[in-house]
Amino acid sequence: MAHRKVSIVVWAGLAVLVMVGSIFADAIGLPDLRWIVIAASLIVLAYAAQLIFKMNKLDPGTELMQQLAGYIRDGAQTFLRREYKVLIIFTLVLGTLLALVIEPRPWVAVGYVVGTAVSALASWIGMSVAVRANVRTASAARHGWGGAMMTAFGGGSIMAFSVVGLGLLTLTLMTMVFDQPYVWLGFVFGSTSVALFLRVGGGIFTKSADVGADLVGKVEAGIPEDDARNPATIADNVGDNVGDIAGMGSDLYESYVSALVAAMVLGQVVYGAIGAFVPLLLGAIGLLSSLLGNLFVRPPSTEDAPFETQVRQVHQSMNRGVYVSNILLVIGAYLLLNHFLPQADALALFGCVVAGLATGFIIGPITEYYTSEHKPVMEIANAANSGPAILIMEGMAIAKMSTVLPIIVIAIATVVAFAFAGLLGIAVASVGMMANLGMLLSMDGYGPITDNAAGIAEMAHMEPEVRERCELLDAVGNSTAALAKGFAIASAALAALAWLATYFVAADIVDVNIEDPQVVAGLFVGAMMVYLFSALTMRGVSKGAFATVEEVRRQFREIKGLLEGTATPDYVRCVDIATVHALHSMLVPGILTIVIPLVVGVLLTSEAVAGLLMGALLVGLPLAIYMANAGGAWDNAKKHIEAGHHGGKGSDAHKASVIGDTIGDPLKDTVGPSLDILIKLVGKMAVMFAPLFGAINIVSNWLP
Amino acid sequence: MAHRKVSIVVWAGLAVLVMVGSIFADAIGLPDLRWIVIAASLIVLAYAAQLIFKMNKLDPGTELMQQLAGYIRDGAQTFLRREYKVLIIFTLVLGTLLALVIEPRPWVAVGYVVGTAVSALASWIGMSVAVRANVRTASAARHGWGGAMMTAFGGGSIMAFSVVGLGLLTLTLMTMVFDQPYVWLGFVFGSTSVALFLRVGGGIFTKSADVGADLVGKVEAGIPEDDARNPATIADNVGDNVGDIAGMGSDLYESYVSALVAAMVLGQVVYGAIGAFVPLLLGAIGLLSSLLGNLFVRPPSTEDAPFETQVRQVHQSMNRGVYVSNILLVIGAYLLLNHFLPQADALALFGCVVAGLATGFIIGPITEYYTSEHKPVMEIANAANSGPAILIMEGMAIAKMSTVLPIIVIAIATVVAFAFAGLLGIAVASVGMMANLGMLLSMDGYGPITDNAAGIAEMAHMEPEVRERCELLDAVGNSTAALAKGFAIASAALAALAWLATYFVAADIVDVNIEDPQVVAGLFVGAMMVYLFSALTMRGVSKGAFATVEEVRRQFREIKGLLEGTATPDYVRCVDIATVHALHSMLVPGILTIVIPLVVGVLLTSEAVAGLLMGALLVGLPLAIYMANAGGAWDNAKKHIEAGHHGGKGSDAHKASVIGDTIGDPLKDTVGPSLDILIKLVGKMAVMFAPLFGAINIVSNWLP
Repeated sequence: MAHRKVSIVVWAGLAVLVMVGSIFADAIGLPDLRWIVIAASLIVLAYAAQLIFKMNKLDPGTELMQQLAGYIRDGAQTFLRREYKVLIIFTLVLGTLLALVIEPRPWVAVGYVVGTAVSALASWIGMSVAVRANVRTASAARHGWGGAMMTAFGGGSIMAFSVVGLGLLTLTLMTMVFDQPYVWLGFVFGSTSVALFLRVGGGIFTKSADVGADLVGKVEAGIPEDDARNPATIADNVGDNVGDIAGMGSDLYESYVSALVAAMVLGQVVYGAIGAFVPLLLGAIGLLSSLLGNLFVRPPSTEDAPFETQVRQVHQSMNRGVYVSNILLVIGAYLLLNHFLPQADALALFGCVVAGLATGFIIGPITEYYTSEHKPVMEIANAANSGPAILIMEGMAIAKMSTVLPIIVIAIATVVAFAFAGLLGIAVASVGMMANLGMLLSMDGYGPITDNAAGIAEMAHMEPEVRERCELLDAVGNSTAALAKGFAIASAALAALAWLATYFVAADIVDVNIEDPQVVAGLFVGAMMVYLFSALTMRGVSKGAFATVEEVRRQFREIKGLLEGTATPDYVRCVDIATVHALHSMLVPGILTIVIPLVVGVLLTSEAVAGLLMGALLVGLPLAIYMANAGGAWDNAKKHIEAGHHGGKGSDAHKASVIGDTIGDPLKDTVGPSLDILIKLVGKMAVMFAPLFGAINIVSNWLP
Repeated sequence: MAHRKVSIVVWAGLAVLVMVGSIFADAIGLPDLRWIVIAASLIVLAYAAQLIFKMNKLDPGTELMQQLAGYIRDGAQTFLRREYKVLIIFTLVLGTLLALVIEPRPWVAVGYVVGTAVSALASWIGMSVAVRANVRTASAARHGWGGAMMTAFGGGSIMAFSVVGLGLLTLTLMTMVFDQPYVWLGFVFGSTSVALFLRVGGGIFTKSADVGADLVGKVEAGIPEDDARNPATIADNVGDNVGDIAGMGSDLYESYVSALVAAMVLGQVVYGAIGAFVPLLLGAIGLLSSLLGNLFVRPPSTEDAPFETQVRQVHQSMNRGVYVSNILLVIGAYLLLNHFLPQADALALFGCVVAGLATGFIIGPITEYYTSEHKPVMEIANAANSGPAILIMEGMAIAKMSTVLPIIVIAIATVVAFAFAGLLGIAVASVGMMANLGMLLSMDGYGPITDNAAGIAEMAHMEPEVRERCELLDAVGNSTAALAKGFAIASAALAALAWLATYFVAADIVDVNIEDPQVVAGLFVGAMMVYLFSALTMRGVSKGAFATVEEVRRQFREIKGLLEGTATPDYVRCVDIATVHALHSMLVPGILTIVIPLVVGVLLTSEAVAGLLMGALLVGLPLAIYMANAGGAWDNAKKHIEAGHHGGKGSDAHKASVIGDTIGDPLKDTVGPSLDILIKLVGKMAVMFAPLFGAINIVSNWLP
């Protein structure tokens, strides 16, 4: 404990020191202000390294636990290896295209490849840590709450700080080597490619495995969830890492560098060189305030308190971390902006930072209200008494209602940010929202790690109290995951708006008039893409689930002694099948998202492409919120019933709620989150290829 | 038969004569060209009157049949009377507002009240005819196919020609009395109010009764559909008339007068007085070509052929009518435009008419493909084998996919129409699509009449072959209904665009730039309204269904001998309860749709309101198509299974498909169609109150 206190003091001291350095960077007399950003990045990377070191020394549990965790680890690596093989081809093709057509040649392509590599590496690290932290969390749960919670949170923190540290470090180095904004944009585009593969591909994988495992395991064979006899159960656990660690991580990381680079590009237009530096310094402050907040997360003090108290303490502890990091960010941002910019501008941009930060944290409780144990979920659970149809209708109605406030909040944030500082204001609001990603991602990574730990505890037949501890830690994880989901959607919306603003500058357009029929056509194409994309990802899940079901049935049929528990199932094949299906199902929507904006840009005007971006955002945003919340609400309505209401487990109401949950699962974990990627990706495509749109223009010549 | 031939020759001769008169109206030397439009309207009204005369002479069946039909008739009248009472208050409030603030005062308010009255009257006539035609169709079915089919089609035709004839007649008279376009706009606004009450209120009523009746009847009490012992069964049959006759009729009628007036207003801007006359003359040609097409619909020639042949013949006969009327419309429009306008302009506007007409008829087969017995529905039926969750997921994916082509078609039509003739082009395309409404509505009215006839045949325990005939006629009705639904959505989209164009002129704005944050805010508010509106209508259905369920349970419990068939249920109370709930559930979304655009217009700029209209259209259109097609596809997947596939009735697949159908029903009959109303209504609100938006402007003063 004394050791822990010393460690906290050292890290906190370092962080505060460099944070002050960031704010008054020019007073230090550095030859380049960016060295301070590099210092901040290195500090959080070192913090992550220390956590890895500590993690590796922890007890990985019994042989059976290690064996099961090994399966999950191998599965996760198999998935990533296969995804990355295709990603490399994809990167080479797109990189070559960029190298051939986008100036400065070939440096944009270089930026793109570096961006892809860094994001891919960060995701790899995140996954590698998570698949080690899960079993150690389960193992620690044998001795009590505190250790288990801190192990899981530590795993999340490693993932978080590796991701943001690596991102900010490379981006800063990039700006030192290349003074051309288009190269930085290329760097972001790399992270977008990775997010497409991991979020969409990962989303399809995870739900193919999950739905497939449930359909055969629970429904046909009648064995419980996370039973080691089910050949798809390892794939299901791999899916949690793939979807919630690699997928969510790469998605939020993408929003993070997106926000920074959009603010840098627009800042440079307004303020010259310093305008590009300030967002980086803001990023450094965010990194360090996240680190400081992170240090405030502590294990529950009383190991013997009733479990509600314990859970509340775990929750409170994380919330404390979030508050601390937010307060530090706000103070730091105020001082930084005041130091570098004229006072009026500094105040305006500070307003944008606060607006962005507030948006992210207002949408969280709204999401929580509609998807956790409150009136709406109670109403859905109540509707379960009238059967699955009414339950689903009720869920649809409530989830639709749940989109209203978030959209209003985002609209207000947009108008306010714009009123403060024009297009730059929107980008800065986006930075404000994302700057504390280190803290947010630590909490978010905690969720799937505890989920996996609970799975391992179940599969390894551990003592009931250990399983209970893991499951309660997992319950906290579910609510942090809901927060992250709301955050991911809001950040996607602001990032999309920021890149729309960047596109206006890149394409040099000032008037996108909805009285222009080409803009109207663009708006409709954008709307259409959202439905096309979600239809394809949805079918990807159902096809993947079918394939998983077939494979599990085959194993039950062909492997003797499987159901009796005397033979080991072929876990690897299930992972393989879901991976291949995910890749196949992801490619068509991915390529369409890339090709359609290009085609519109080439056939119609640059303004039509702006219409497309707006159309995709406008249609995609409510649909994404709707799906995420419908899934969350059905999930929790089921859990509410399972907790003994309306007849509890096995009742007709419960059966109805299981149907709702099964439908909601891919909505919230695949189709909804994939739309985040869509609305961000089209913006990047537009900016990257904006130079082309002016040059070639086919249809618009004969149109008014 | 000889009598029928003479009658056809007389009507055809009259129609051709006046049609030629319309095209060369000025050559006749009339003091006012509009007398010819009035003549055309009077001819179709006379045709409708003759059909009513013939209908009343038909045999209304046995005493039991008449009694049951009487219940339905009374129920429908109860519904309308209650709706109209609230509608009168609503009209007085809104009319007073218009009389106080919108110039020319109070004539806009007068136009509004007249518009409401005419639309309400037309719907009343349509309903009165339909609730008489249903029992006569069932009665005629005792003697064979032909008579039954022609009775139902005749009922549809009466409804259709009363609606369009009255509409065009009053509108024309209106333009003769008031030369102020704002008064005509007021007239349209009246039809919008009625459509809101009948389509949204009617939609909620019909599905409350339907879902409620099914839940208690089929599921709890185990009695078949349309069983006279079920107290909600009359309400269910009333609902078919309320939703599909009054609702669909008032909705399409609204699109019809919307299209005409938008074209008149924009035409007057471009061409002066003649620009306002030409759309009316185009309307007259459409009326008469519909009448001529109508005369081509004949009963199947062979009464003894196998039933597939008979059904095909019924189908072909109606399609022939549609082809004839379309060809006549195209020829007539070409000659008319060429006669009145400079050749280049005439050709361009003719192109718009064809684009509009084609859009309506391309979307039909696309809808048909995704919702009838083709690959998508087969796949959904196949998914039923894996349970309700997979069936619903599959349906969602397919319905999402089904939005892609219609949106592309509408986008192309918009761009093409605009390329031909600017904003006026869009309005003219909308007229082209709607001009043949007489023919389309005749077919559409046929559906619910045969549906009711089948219900009466079932309730009155008629001979199996009579019931079979009614059901097969009903099957044709389902596919004409799908056509009408696709058409209603497409027409709503074009009407919304035409009114957006009218709004640009009314508010005198030329630049609605999506770089303007107020426009962005408007877009988001429009998007939000769509979700809010559909959440509220959806909840309206589930609450209404709950209330119906409670009432039916009460009657089963309290009325002795009900289930044994010795006592008569209290049908009236079920109708009453569903009506009250429908009215309550309709008011909040209705008022919001009216208030929100006003608030946006008062707080922000006129351009923000334009953004709101575009946002609502862009988000509402795909969602409306999605819901309509999801519902249609699940319905037909169920029918496919009931026809003996995947285990047929009673199998697990069938149970899964029943769940899908129950969810899909309100989507396709309430929530989806209500969105048509929403996207049209906001446009009308914006145009009506456009003069206010410039004057008061609060927030926008401190915004950039």
